[in-house]
Amino acid sequence: MPLVRVHNSSISLDGFGTGEDQTFEAPFGTAGQRLTKWFVATSAFRAMFGSAGGSLGVDNAFAARWNEGVGAEIMGRAKFGPQTGAWKDDDDWKGWWGAEPPFHTPCFVLSHHPHPPITMEGGTSFQFLDATPEEALRVAQEAAGDLDVRIGGGPTTVREFLAADLIDEMHLAVVPIVLGRGVRLWDGLEGVEERFDVETVASPSGVVHLTFRRRPRTEAAHGA
Amino acid sequence: MPLVRVHNSSISLDGFGTGEDQTFEAPFGTAGQRLTKWFVATSAFRAMFGSAGGSLGVDNAFAARWNEGVGAEIMGRAKFGPQTGAWKDDDDWKGWWGAEPPFHTPCFVLSHHPHPPITMEGGTSFQFLDATPEEALRVAQEAAGDLDVRIGGGPTTVREFLAADLIDEMHLAVVPIVLGRGVRLWDGLEGVEERFDVETVASPSGVVHLTFRRRPRTEAAHGA
Repeated sequence: MPLVRVHNSSISLDGFGTGEDQTFEAPFGTAGQRLTKWFVATSAFRAMFGSAGGSLGVDNAFAARWNEGVGAEIMGRAKFGPQTGAWKDDDDWKGWWGAEPPFHTPCFVLSHHPHPPITMEGGTSFQFLDATPEEALRVAQEAAGDLDVRIGGGPTTVREFLAADLIDEMHLAVVPIVLGRGVRLWDGLEGVEERFDVETVASPSGVVHLTFRRRPRTEAAHGA
Repeated sequence: MPLVRVHNSSISLDGFGTGEDQTFEAPFGTAGQRLTKWFVATSAFRAMFGSAGGSLGVDNAFAARWNEGVGAEIMGRAKFGPQTGAWKDDDDWKGWWGAEPPFHTPCFVLSHHPHPPITMEGGTSFQFLDATPEEALRVAQEAAGDLDVRIGGGPTTVREFLAADLIDEMHLAVVPIVLGRGVRLWDGLEGVEERFDVETVASPSGVVHLTFRRRPRTEAAHGA
């Protein structure tokens, strides 16, 4: 049975998954590079863009799992770009990832406003959906076939899929920084950990990796 | 040079150091026992109240350091009791800790309202101060002599001492739960980690221990 997975979602000690004031130059807004520094340093990240080198420790071991067996991604609009409101007809933005994005699968971008699909090199496409999490997941699962679906973020999207109880596996990286402002991952999710088995691993980088595995649904019903 | 230390301050993944709606029956309010479960299970906690047994792993190694070399504690009013406003003349509350509290030192309780001092068995006293963090620290350091001062919490008090840059060493335990509501430790402290060297250790219990050591002040001035 294919899974719904989250990988490499970074949050600060105060629970922010990104900053505020996102722009084309600052995809994470006021958070800058602070949340993603550990990830950018990994071999897995460099390999996404054809570069050699990078760290090989526990940060990389978690980072590298992001695209294994994944057949489609769902992302929030703000992960794709900083635009808000209706898309402009002459907007030729194709995301932050260059001509050949590292996804290599269909990617479904949640947006209330219609946008024509975009086909990129290397098997990545961006298709825009005005849909609930459940509806978007059905579309993405159809595209993924026997493979898993990744919920690619940002934090608002992960939060919505957690709230709808659609996540089977989630990897978070808690970065030991205090962002002070931005988008909170956990709002409205009191007690969400009760649905999951949680493991924690600290990296020498200072980042803490948490994995959440959804408990079998019958067992969870008894457990509450 | 005596230090100012924080120990065993537990926070949730969403950054709450306690719940809301504190009562005499629920010192952590809506958080219940969720934040302190790891601590209560340790040998060090049991020893505070004369009990044997308890865990001996990494949780205990951190927990046990709380009172070594400490000569005085400063605590917020809500750590002492759930009362608000002026103290009642007939209030005979002496804290949650029984006739012989585990502190065995003077404890300074921050309160805007006057309250007579309380002397307990075993060397603990509670003295009430209407003071800024700097003023309270001066009083506590005088009482502690050559020993360190502990900032005993709750989260509002720790936050105020962090904001005033009065903390030398801080041990936090991040508990992998989502509380959803309560008192946030980090509000107003964006970038506070830049003043500290931070280390992280994950425990098999799932709790993550973070230690913050204040960088030498001249070095920090150059580093920013």
